[in-house]
Amino acid sequence: MQPFSPQALLARKVPIDNDWSRRDTMIYALGVGAEELPFVYEKQLVALPTMAAAIGYPGFHFWMDPELGIDTGRIVHGETEVLLHRPLPVEGRFSSINQVERIWDKGEGKGAVVRQMRQIHDAQGAHIATVTNSSMLRGNGGFGGTSEGQPAPRPVPDDRTPDAVVTLATAPNQALLYRLSGDYNPLHIDPAAAQAVGFERPILHGLCTFGVAGRAILAALCGNDPARLRKIGVRFSSPVYPGETISVEIWKGVDGNASFRAIAKERGVMVLNNGYAETL
Amino acid sequence: MQPFSPQALLARKVPIDNDWSRRDTMIYALGVGAEELPFVYEKQLVALPTMAAAIGYPGFHFWMDPELGIDTGRIVHGETEVLLHRPLPVEGRFSSINQVERIWDKGEGKGAVVRQMRQIHDAQGAHIATVTNSSMLRGNGGFGGTSEGQPAPRPVPDDRTPDAVVTLATAPNQALLYRLSGDYNPLHIDPAAAQAVGFERPILHGLCTFGVAGRAILAALCGNDPARLRKIGVRFSSPVYPGETISVEIWKGVDGNASFRAIAKERGVMVLNNGYAETL
Repeated sequence: MQPFSPQALLARKVPIDNDWSRRDTMIYALGVGAEELPFVYEKQLVALPTMAAAIGYPGFHFWMDPELGIDTGRIVHGETEVLLHRPLPVEGRFSSINQVERIWDKGEGKGAVVRQMRQIHDAQGAHIATVTNSSMLRGNGGFGGTSEGQPAPRPVPDDRTPDAVVTLATAPNQALLYRLSGDYNPLHIDPAAAQAVGFERPILHGLCTFGVAGRAILAALCGNDPARLRKIGVRFSSPVYPGETISVEIWKGVDGNASFRAIAKERGVMVLNNGYAETL
Repeated sequence: MQPFSPQALLARKVPIDNDWSRRDTMIYALGVGAEELPFVYEKQLVALPTMAAAIGYPGFHFWMDPELGIDTGRIVHGETEVLLHRPLPVEGRFSSINQVERIWDKGEGKGAVVRQMRQIHDAQGAHIATVTNSSMLRGNGGFGGTSEGQPAPRPVPDDRTPDAVVTLATAPNQALLYRLSGDYNPLHIDPAAAQAVGFERPILHGLCTFGVAGRAILAALCGNDPARLRKIGVRFSSPVYPGETISVEIWKGVDGNASFRAIAKERGVMVLNNGYAETL
């Protein structure tokens, strides 16, 4: 393998165009467990805001150029944020560009933290959404970069009781459904692939758990109106197994801001932490 | 409305081309509740034989030409049969032609029984499947035709215990998933549409129940190998509600033939009757 090249990574641009149909919008909604008619019925369809995390999603392809020198087997998805500049259309052609915005060096043996950004535009050139993902490249620390300036995780005010708790089920086939929105990583379906990296069975996509949390925020704070959710972000703290129940604990802040985290209820394990949302 | 024209109906040809992807094949499988990897994982994918019932499916469009004079609000789907001339491909372009083969007149107040056939070919012109559907046009009996020659339903040998009973769950969102394979009739999603025709809530697609029964036959008689199921047919006797459990009672015959029926377990209601299968 070539040595890790932060320069090559910073220079990388991965454009992705999607012809997105109403059917795709419904498949996404079912993939994150939604059953409310406006999310699954073409005659009154609105898009879940978290769907932006699936539009223009480059997956592992983003890291695969050999010139980058990335140890692709040791990448961990750390954080996701979706910022909507306007409500997501339910269909149309989306043009996305994926790029790296910053790289931090946590040191050899720890890894490099890479923050990617994706700008999503519609066919008319309107700016729809900005999606930010942070990943830890565990095999690529110690390249001589800085660890300074990484934003601190947003604290949740867990010294007080949440203002709302929304509990949502995931189905045993949840990952089988979610993957049809474009993340076909075998980790989420193939028992052998999951066991090879230390999981007893396939785990749910982090972005599926994110979508479930988004449904909880929409229901608790936005009256299920996607136009009222402007921003939502989370840190992934532990995987969810398909079929588990997700309890989303929500603290309301000022000016439509909120904090949240999520627990895999049956195991009592925190799966999302440092969640934040901006609502209108 | 124009008077019912059996001649126009017999002359009607509805060709449908589908560009079918592996993703579509997986969506169909999830739509009928399958979770076994070969049916839902692109790397080892095989198609469920009953998927032929969704390929080239014309839906209500078939009956919609005003020249036909059909009372489209009073059509009941009666029977379906899938005959595979070779195993279904998991992807490719399918060309289908839907036509009426026979019409029987059960008399005014009863209706007309219409048997449609669909021939499905692949892009190379190979004959893949023949799908037969019988429908009762309840508003169109008494046109002066014959009631003679309609094949009798295949009896199931219910004077003895079934040789196998395969019990399969349907999910509460089963119809939301199944409809993504091309039958967007609101009856299966919209509570108002379901109540307008006398159901307390949306019912499952008959062809979804058919697919669930096909999974039971495949598992019980074919070791889950789709290449071993040559023909499967059923008569629809009562609707299933999404979320109900389906018990498929199977009687083995000679030379790979079998009979079956299906019960909605929670209500004890027969939902499929006169089922038959030919296996290799």
